[in-house]
Amino acid sequence: MKNIRIETGKPYDVMIGSGLLDNTGSVVSNVLPKARKAAVITDSNVGPVYLKRVSSSLEKTGINCACHVIRAGEESKSMAVYEELLTFLAQEGITRSDVVIALGGGVVGDLAGFAAATWQRGISCIQIPTSLLAMVDSSVGGKTAIDLPAGKNLVGAFHQPSAVICDPDTLTTLPDDIFRDGCAEVIKYGVLEDRQLFDHLLENGTKFDRSYILSTCVSVKARYVSEDERESGVRRMLNLGHTFGHAIEAHSDFRLSHGKSVAIGLAVIARAAAAKGVCDAAASEAVTDCLVRFGLPDRCPDPAEELWPYVLADKKRRADSVILIVPERIGRCRILEVGPEQAEEWLRAGL
Amino acid sequence: MKNIRIETGKPYDVMIGSGLLDNTGSVVSNVLPKARKAAVITDSNVGPVYLKRVSSSLEKTGINCACHVIRAGEESKSMAVYEELLTFLAQEGITRSDVVIALGGGVVGDLAGFAAATWQRGISCIQIPTSLLAMVDSSVGGKTAIDLPAGKNLVGAFHQPSAVICDPDTLTTLPDDIFRDGCAEVIKYGVLEDRQLFDHLLENGTKFDRSYILSTCVSVKARYVSEDERESGVRRMLNLGHTFGHAIEAHSDFRLSHGKSVAIGLAVIARAAAAKGVCDAAASEAVTDCLVRFGLPDRCPDPAEELWPYVLADKKRRADSVILIVPERIGRCRILEVGPEQAEEWLRAGL
Repeated sequence: MKNIRIETGKPYDVMIGSGLLDNTGSVVSNVLPKARKAAVITDSNVGPVYLKRVSSSLEKTGINCACHVIRAGEESKSMAVYEELLTFLAQEGITRSDVVIALGGGVVGDLAGFAAATWQRGISCIQIPTSLLAMVDSSVGGKTAIDLPAGKNLVGAFHQPSAVICDPDTLTTLPDDIFRDGCAEVIKYGVLEDRQLFDHLLENGTKFDRSYILSTCVSVKARYVSEDERESGVRRMLNLGHTFGHAIEAHSDFRLSHGKSVAIGLAVIARAAAAKGVCDAAASEAVTDCLVRFGLPDRCPDPAEELWPYVLADKKRRADSVILIVPERIGRCRILEVGPEQAEEWLRAGL
Repeated sequence: MKNIRIETGKPYDVMIGSGLLDNTGSVVSNVLPKARKAAVITDSNVGPVYLKRVSSSLEKTGINCACHVIRAGEESKSMAVYEELLTFLAQEGITRSDVVIALGGGVVGDLAGFAAATWQRGISCIQIPTSLLAMVDSSVGGKTAIDLPAGKNLVGAFHQPSAVICDPDTLTTLPDDIFRDGCAEVIKYGVLEDRQLFDHLLENGTKFDRSYILSTCVSVKARYVSEDERESGVRRMLNLGHTFGHAIEAHSDFRLSHGKSVAIGLAVIARAAAAKGVCDAAASEAVTDCLVRFGLPDRCPDPAEELWPYVLADKKRRADSVILIVPERIGRCRILEVGPEQAEEWLRAGL
C-alpha cells in the first residue's frame, strides 16, 4: 500500500492499495474517530458491484451505514439530484460528526463532495474513486461541483476530503471506453512533468503498470494542490489540455467525453506549441503518438470560429486574458497568459 | 464612520456610518478593484426603498450593476430561490472577479451569501445589512445558509464577506416588530459580556444610541469570529439564548420569529441559571426586565416534553451532549457541556 500526503489546510492521505475497499471501515474510524454514521453515495453502475463490500466493512467497525444510489451519468450532476442527496442526509439524520462517502467516478465524487461541503455548512467526506479519471484527478484536491443548464461545474465548493481510498482493483470492472478517458488525464501528467511516466505509457499503452501510474500521477497532483489549494497560481498547470479541451467538450454539447476532449485539447496545444516554436516538432508528435497508442482522438473536426466562443466562456478565464498551459518539451510546460486575439491564433495553429 | 476589523483567514472590515449606502461603489472598488460587475440581490421590501441608491453609487464608480429582487420573507431561503439566484448569476455572466452584493436583512444575506459561496466555487460577496438583526449578527462572520423542508439553515457554507456596509439610517424604515426582533440579539450581547451595554439598553429601551450599540455589538462578534472562524470553540458563546430559542422557534413551526424565540431562550436559560445557583436571582430578573422593556416575550407556553425533541434535533448538538451557554452574571457567561438528562433539567428549571 502507498500513502500520498496532500498538504492542504487540513492535510489528508490518498491511500493506494489493492483490496483497500475492504478496509473502508478501519480507514474511516482511524481518520474520523467520532463518526458514527456514514452516508454512502454511489451510482447505478458502481453500486451493484462494490457497495456491499464498502458497507460491510463499515458495519464491521461499528459505523452505521445509510446508502443512496443515484442514476449513473453526467445528468445526475444536477440541482435536482443535489437536492435529493440533501433530503437523504436530512432523513438519515447525518450530523456534523458523521461522514459522507463518495463511492464511484467523477460524477459521484463531485456531487457527493458538494453535498458534504454544504450539508450543515460542511461535514467530512471520504472519496473512494472507482474510475481511472477519478483516481488520478477529480477525487484529489477538493474540487466539488454540480452542473447548471448554463454550463458544467458552475456551482460548487472547495472542500478537501478527509481521505481518498484508491483501490486499483476496481479498474478491472471499468468499461474500456471509460478507462481510456482516464488515460487522457494520465498522459497529461506525463507531458506536464514526467518524461519517464510518458515513456512508460508510450511503451506499454493500456497495459501500463497501474500501481506505478496511480502513485506517480497522484504525487504530481498532490504537489500542485499542496502548493495552491484554491487554484490561484501554479495549480492552473493541471489545466494542460483543458483550455481548448473544455471548449471542444462544450461545443459538442458534451456528447464528446471529457477524456476524449482533453485528449484533443492536449494534441491541439502541443501542435500549436510546435507551430509557435515553443517546443520542437518531435515533442508534439510524441504527444499525438501517445494519444493514438491509447485509441484516443487527436484531431478536432470543428472549425476555430465555432470553438472560439466556448474558449471565451470558460469560467477560469480572467477578464482580459486567456491562460494557456504550453508544452516546452515532454515533461515540462509553462503558463502563458495571452490576450484573446493571441489565444485565438494558438487555437488556429493547433487545430 | 467606524471600521471594525474581522480577523478571519481573509480579514475584512465592518463599516458603520450614516449614509454609507451612497458610498457602496467606492467601497467595492476599494476592496475589490478587479470587480467589473456587481450582482445586487435584495428583496421586495428593501428593494423599492434602497436599491436605486446602491445601484447608482455602483454605476457612478464604473461598476456594472445587475439586480435581482426576491420575495421578502423566510420562505425565500429555499432551494428553489437559491437555484433562481444561480440562474441569474449565469445569465448575467458573473465571473470569479465579480461580486455579489446582499442588500437586505438576514434572509437576503444568508441566501445571497450562499449563492456567492458556491457560484463557480466561491466569488466575493459584500453584505449590506438593512435590519438590526443582520447588522449585529447575521451579516458578520461568514455564515450563509438556506432552509430545507426538514429544517432551517441545514444547507450552507462558511464564506466570509469582503466587507460589510452598515448604514444605521436604514433602521428608520424598519417595521417596529422586526426592529424589536433585532433587539433580542442586542440584549444577548449585553448579557454575554457587556454590563454597560446592558444597562444602557435597560435605561433607554428602543431609544438606545444606535451608533454606540451597533459598534459595541459588532466588536463583540468580531472578537469571537476572529478567534474561532468556523465555530468549533469559543464562538459557540454567541449561541447564548439560542439552544432553547431554536427549539421554541422550531416547535412553533417558525410562526414565532427568531428574535422573539431568542428572547424567550434568554429568559429561560437565565431563570435556569438562577435556579441552579449559577447566577443570582437579581441577574435573572434583570434579563427578564430588559426583555419586557423592549416589548419582547420572556415566557414560553410550551411544555418541556414538547420542546425537548427539538433541542435534541439541533444541528449544533454533539452526539452525546448538549451545549448550554449559561449566564453567571450580567456581562459574563460560561459554556456548559452536559448530558441530555441534565440539559432537560435545565430546560424544565427555566420554563
